[in-house]
Amino acid sequence: MNAPKRGRRQFLKESVALAGMALGAAATASAQTPEGAATDVHPKGVVEPYGVRSRFEKSVRVPEPNATHQAFARSLGALTPLREIIGTITPSGLHYVANHGYYPPVIDPQQHRLLIHGMVDRPLIFTMEELRRLPSVSRVYFLECQANKANPRKDNVDDSHGKTACSEWTGVPLSLLLKEAGVQSGADWIVAEGDEAGKHAKSVPLSKVMKDVMLAYGQNGEPVRPENGYPLRLMVPGFEAIYSVKWVRRIKLVDRPYMEYQEVTRYTTKDAKSAWFNFEMGPKSVITFPAGGQRMPGRGYFQITGLAWSGGGAIRRVEVSTDGGKTWNDAEIQGPALPMAHTRFGFSWKWEGQEAMLLSRCTDEQGQVQPSLAEFAKFWGLTPEKALSDGGGMGHFNMIQPWKVSSDGSIHNAILS
Amino acid sequence: MNAPKRGRRQFLKESVALAGMALGAAATASAQTPEGAATDVHPKGVVEPYGVRSRFEKSVRVPEPNATHQAFARSLGALTPLREIIGTITPSGLHYVANHGYYPPVIDPQQHRLLIHGMVDRPLIFTMEELRRLPSVSRVYFLECQANKANPRKDNVDDSHGKTACSEWTGVPLSLLLKEAGVQSGADWIVAEGDEAGKHAKSVPLSKVMKDVMLAYGQNGEPVRPENGYPLRLMVPGFEAIYSVKWVRRIKLVDRPYMEYQEVTRYTTKDAKSAWFNFEMGPKSVITFPAGGQRMPGRGYFQITGLAWSGGGAIRRVEVSTDGGKTWNDAEIQGPALPMAHTRFGFSWKWEGQEAMLLSRCTDEQGQVQPSLAEFAKFWGLTPEKALSDGGGMGHFNMIQPWKVSSDGSIHNAILS
Repeated sequence: MNAPKRGRRQFLKESVALAGMALGAAATASAQTPEGAATDVHPKGVVEPYGVRSRFEKSVRVPEPNATHQAFARSLGALTPLREIIGTITPSGLHYVANHGYYPPVIDPQQHRLLIHGMVDRPLIFTMEELRRLPSVSRVYFLECQANKANPRKDNVDDSHGKTACSEWTGVPLSLLLKEAGVQSGADWIVAEGDEAGKHAKSVPLSKVMKDVMLAYGQNGEPVRPENGYPLRLMVPGFEAIYSVKWVRRIKLVDRPYMEYQEVTRYTTKDAKSAWFNFEMGPKSVITFPAGGQRMPGRGYFQITGLAWSGGGAIRRVEVSTDGGKTWNDAEIQGPALPMAHTRFGFSWKWEGQEAMLLSRCTDEQGQVQPSLAEFAKFWGLTPEKALSDGGGMGHFNMIQPWKVSSDGSIHNAILS
Repeated sequence: MNAPKRGRRQFLKESVALAGMALGAAATASAQTPEGAATDVHPKGVVEPYGVRSRFEKSVRVPEPNATHQAFARSLGALTPLREIIGTITPSGLHYVANHGYYPPVIDPQQHRLLIHGMVDRPLIFTMEELRRLPSVSRVYFLECQANKANPRKDNVDDSHGKTACSEWTGVPLSLLLKEAGVQSGADWIVAEGDEAGKHAKSVPLSKVMKDVMLAYGQNGEPVRPENGYPLRLMVPGFEAIYSVKWVRRIKLVDRPYMEYQEVTRYTTKDAKSAWFNFEMGPKSVITFPAGGQRMPGRGYFQITGLAWSGGGAIRRVEVSTDGGKTWNDAEIQGPALPMAHTRFGFSWKWEGQEAMLLSRCTDEQGQVQPSLAEFAKFWGLTPEKALSDGGGMGHFNMIQPWKVSSDGSIHNAILS
């Protein structure tokens, strides 16, 4: 079913389209040097000591649809503007924010302390200065809310998929501190607690902690941003972002998972007799251009572009379909495909006004393939509508996202078509 | 001469030092939950639409020593504050700036054009919108000024090594555009020209262009920052940063290198009869803590940390010496070791007030090893003093940097000791 690899080579075969696009301008300019657009110098005549964006750039976080202004102000739903993100790193200023109703606290790093206690031989308290003296690791990881959702009512890629972001995180492996503290026999989980007004806490299995959990103080080369956990956050790579406790102040070693507020109310899957945690985010991808809420800017050659990621490891393959899934073609992976990180893909496409249904699906290093909505619903024994509304009760809405391009150039969410 | 691998394992053997450090605090706290440092909420009670740093963070670019205020204002010498960079990515707001005396221009991206002309079959002009429709690549690359210099008069790691930075760059492979334009037989170089007042131009060999040169419009997930070339810069990975022409507006295909202003005045190596270009930056590393201009904050366990990079490809090994080069130990590579990118290393060390001489040296994937000053000087047939002042006339001061730690905890540049 898969066509041969398509990408740059294919693009070159379509050079007529590109030449047409560019030569229109070149012909009128007769190969003269174009007039420079640099009409003035920096208004202040200086380079800022801490640099800022061009005045022409206006990207901002997106308020969640239906969020009241107050809710946005309280950061219940500030989304990454995915369409405007370039490459794989999310600028820290545009990282989505979800704080469960509490303001980001203002924390003086000199006053902040991390306590490790519970089932340990030696309880330990660390200052930030002490943590930063220790061996560190730097890794590029995505963070995605488990509710990041292909919603039929959300006709915009930022609204439907904007609760994900990717940064270089730097910090101390928590395993290192636990070895110093001496984990007692029988301890099998940690409970990590944050320092915001709501004191969000989350249980994390010790096996995961010893594998790759870190206490992150760095984000994209500088201290973690306030709304992302300054000065210290737990980083639990590949898991639901709710595990990566922000403003972390306390880690308790315990023998079983604790049912903290968020687990009781939302972040577990429940049936009549029991409730259980969900951990790893599945393989997921989404086309960010052309995508719902946008318009085709004209006819001709376009790069279809998007992001893929998986809690299961590195992305190994991304496929794109322009005919609703009848045929699939390999997309080009255009950046580093790091484990548990956003991975940029691209696919050369020519749009001449035809109707199209654009889909992407990814495969991770474990061989896990992103499911269609039908496959996802069948797995959970649900109708597609029900699967979309609660994802089988477990969140993790990683179904393939179709975008319908109409002949007038408008683009809409076609998840239920 | 190399001791067995040292790193996290070694750190754990030294746990007494760490326990001493941390238990002091834990003992007084009796393993109680520490008082949170979160004394208030965000002063505005909101999450910024485009987020900002914590009010407690003050890192800024460093004016070059001896630079007049005006020179800094004109951005002749704004350096990356290397000591404060965490991980491998340099925050865009802290990327060093060197503009050869011209203000960064203010360019409206809708007005900007790129012309490709000279020895081509079809001259082409592109708008930014057209470039962003094309297949792109995202890569993490360092940019380093060829004059970035281990200077005996510069007793501070920012001053001596701060003309380097590392970002994720996204853009269009220039080779793709040249294939569209049709490179004529005999064309062997390009000349790229920027749009600032001085119209900086640089010749780049076509072989390099076809390999990995890109037209970058993205830096760390968002548009290139104004002082780094907004809206478009040439990115010539691994070469002297002077090749990566900012605010690029014109690319001319030519049959030989042009001697543009910067080549004539500074950026070539010359003897009595000829002048030649220098391209690739050699393997280089520097310890950023503990380093010149800093003080040891106390005794006990510390992570020696720093950055390594090479124009020759990925960093494969970093070694650290604490005794002036008598013995060397493998450092731990703590982040992704991507080709032609800053690579973070760390090394566990205990300081109990002894004098020490700290050195790092790196090896890249080609097997190139960073030289000592003596090796560097011998290669060029110069005295060490002369080698430091002009690097054999070619810049590229990649000699090993020694930092001397005195028993009082002060740290100084020992490049000539």
